[in-house]
Amino acid sequence: MSKYCFGVDVGGTTIKMGLFDMEGTVLDKWEIPTKTEDNGSCILPDIAEAVKSKMKEKSLEAADVAGVGVGVPGPVDADGIVHVAVNLGWGVINIKKTLEDLLHMHVEAGNDANVAALGEMWKGGGVGHKNLVAVTLGTGVGGGIIVNGQILTGATGAGGEIGHIHVEDAETESCNCKNKGCLEQYASATGIVRLANRKLAKTTEDTILRKENVSAKTVFDAVKAGDKVAIEVAEQFGEYLGKGLASIAGVVNPEIFVIGGGVSKAGTVVLDYIKKYYTPYVFQGSRDAIFALATLGNDAGIYGAAKLVL
Amino acid sequence: MSKYCFGVDVGGTTIKMGLFDMEGTVLDKWEIPTKTEDNGSCILPDIAEAVKSKMKEKSLEAADVAGVGVGVPGPVDADGIVHVAVNLGWGVINIKKTLEDLLHMHVEAGNDANVAALGEMWKGGGVGHKNLVAVTLGTGVGGGIIVNGQILTGATGAGGEIGHIHVEDAETESCNCKNKGCLEQYASATGIVRLANRKLAKTTEDTILRKENVSAKTVFDAVKAGDKVAIEVAEQFGEYLGKGLASIAGVVNPEIFVIGGGVSKAGTVVLDYIKKYYTPYVFQGSRDAIFALATLGNDAGIYGAAKLVL
Repeated sequence: MSKYCFGVDVGGTTIKMGLFDMEGTVLDKWEIPTKTEDNGSCILPDIAEAVKSKMKEKSLEAADVAGVGVGVPGPVDADGIVHVAVNLGWGVINIKKTLEDLLHMHVEAGNDANVAALGEMWKGGGVGHKNLVAVTLGTGVGGGIIVNGQILTGATGAGGEIGHIHVEDAETESCNCKNKGCLEQYASATGIVRLANRKLAKTTEDTILRKENVSAKTVFDAVKAGDKVAIEVAEQFGEYLGKGLASIAGVVNPEIFVIGGGVSKAGTVVLDYIKKYYTPYVFQGSRDAIFALATLGNDAGIYGAAKLVL
Repeated sequence: MSKYCFGVDVGGTTIKMGLFDMEGTVLDKWEIPTKTEDNGSCILPDIAEAVKSKMKEKSLEAADVAGVGVGVPGPVDADGIVHVAVNLGWGVINIKKTLEDLLHMHVEAGNDANVAALGEMWKGGGVGHKNLVAVTLGTGVGGGIIVNGQILTGATGAGGEIGHIHVEDAETESCNCKNKGCLEQYASATGIVRLANRKLAKTTEDTILRKENVSAKTVFDAVKAGDKVAIEVAEQFGEYLGKGLASIAGVVNPEIFVIGGGVSKAGTVVLDYIKKYYTPYVFQGSRDAIFALATLGNDAGIYGAAKLVL
């Protein structure tokens, strides 16, 4: 009977790896570099090597290990095939089959944001819930949706790509995705800076924000200090995100939203501004959804990846 | 080994019933009245009686029947409990347990719109697909979402309640749900009439629409006749619905949208206007989703209900 599993989170510069027991306690955690040269052809062999080497170090047999779960930055379909992962240099690759051939162990693969959502459900801010939407407010806005304890993968692995939901008809600038008015343009760390700079250009009001480099952190620090202009920016952020999450709730009716990423480091004040605008926009059946902060930080990926094989 | 199953679609005035073989061929189809008096307390016993009486008529034993699936107009959770069904006079009722006690057979229950979506996947416009969004454009806008062949029920049975997704910030009138700017205010049969009347109040242009009672049908008939004002109304309808479906695609990444309800009787012209606006708003991972018309009409509910128990 298996006693262990591995969780692997592949990023553009490093690959995070974790060895877990079956209850989800992390026993060891380490990183290896991501070699993106040669279209990232070394990445999966490097992961296999790292797993084997850790098994040797810990004197583990294949029978001791339930499997290896892997999260990657790209859409992964239900068969474990990634269709493109730009940051890794990958085109279409069958992660599950390739790694199973290298390791002769059970392998599962998923999109990194979806896998992180699973991690937050299992051991993070979403513990106790089976219907969950995880929202990552970083450079962009990522998402992962868990329905009845399972990742919502979607037809082409693009389930939970909530950063590009349309929330503003009047937008004139393009999003990275080339559309206009995407949630990511207002609710990401970058989006908050855009909102703040637009506000600063329009007002002559005195504000802390004019005295330092504007970032999501400085905006929420200023909010906590009672800065009126910063509060107006936070209101805008909250309205866009609350409205977007209300639309998502109209589709998947979650029990809980788990908010993570750099922006969430400002703490519960972020949740307050989201909830304020979520409630008036949402359909009553989803009005009681709760909001929580993510708690696993950068480890959500390895936790969720491990959970994939359990 | 079972050879048959029953599909039951409970409406506010009639209960549609169907006897199916295991491949989904409907062998018999009939209706009984919905008795809403006494908080609808006769509804489930009437269904049980109708099932028993049909089994007697066809000389079926319990062992011949895989089960009875039921769709009802209200949110039904994963345990088969409806939390309120205003049109039936129901509060909280455990449909599955109540009917199983009456029939001593396997029973499953679901929300009628979700169940109809399952029917369209099994035997209607969505055949061959496992990730599907069904959209019903009737008096309101209903929806049902199928993920990996299963109904997306959600935390409280409100999954797929897409009619109340917010799509217009500038709306001044309230939706039936009391929010403002819901998809249903523009894309339902009633919504199209609102759009047309607003347009007629603003323009002096000659149009067929001024010569008859405005309805979704007269609007799309006029569109087919090349009426400029009607075409402008259809463009607005298409933009609201295309934008709303693009948001839904950003969440669940479906293979196909199946469009049904009274409005869809106008035919593929409806799909054309939706697709025209879906594409520019949707995230690229969902850009290839296809659009089809529902084909089962009012029978989608009994087909989907039957599929619930297979």
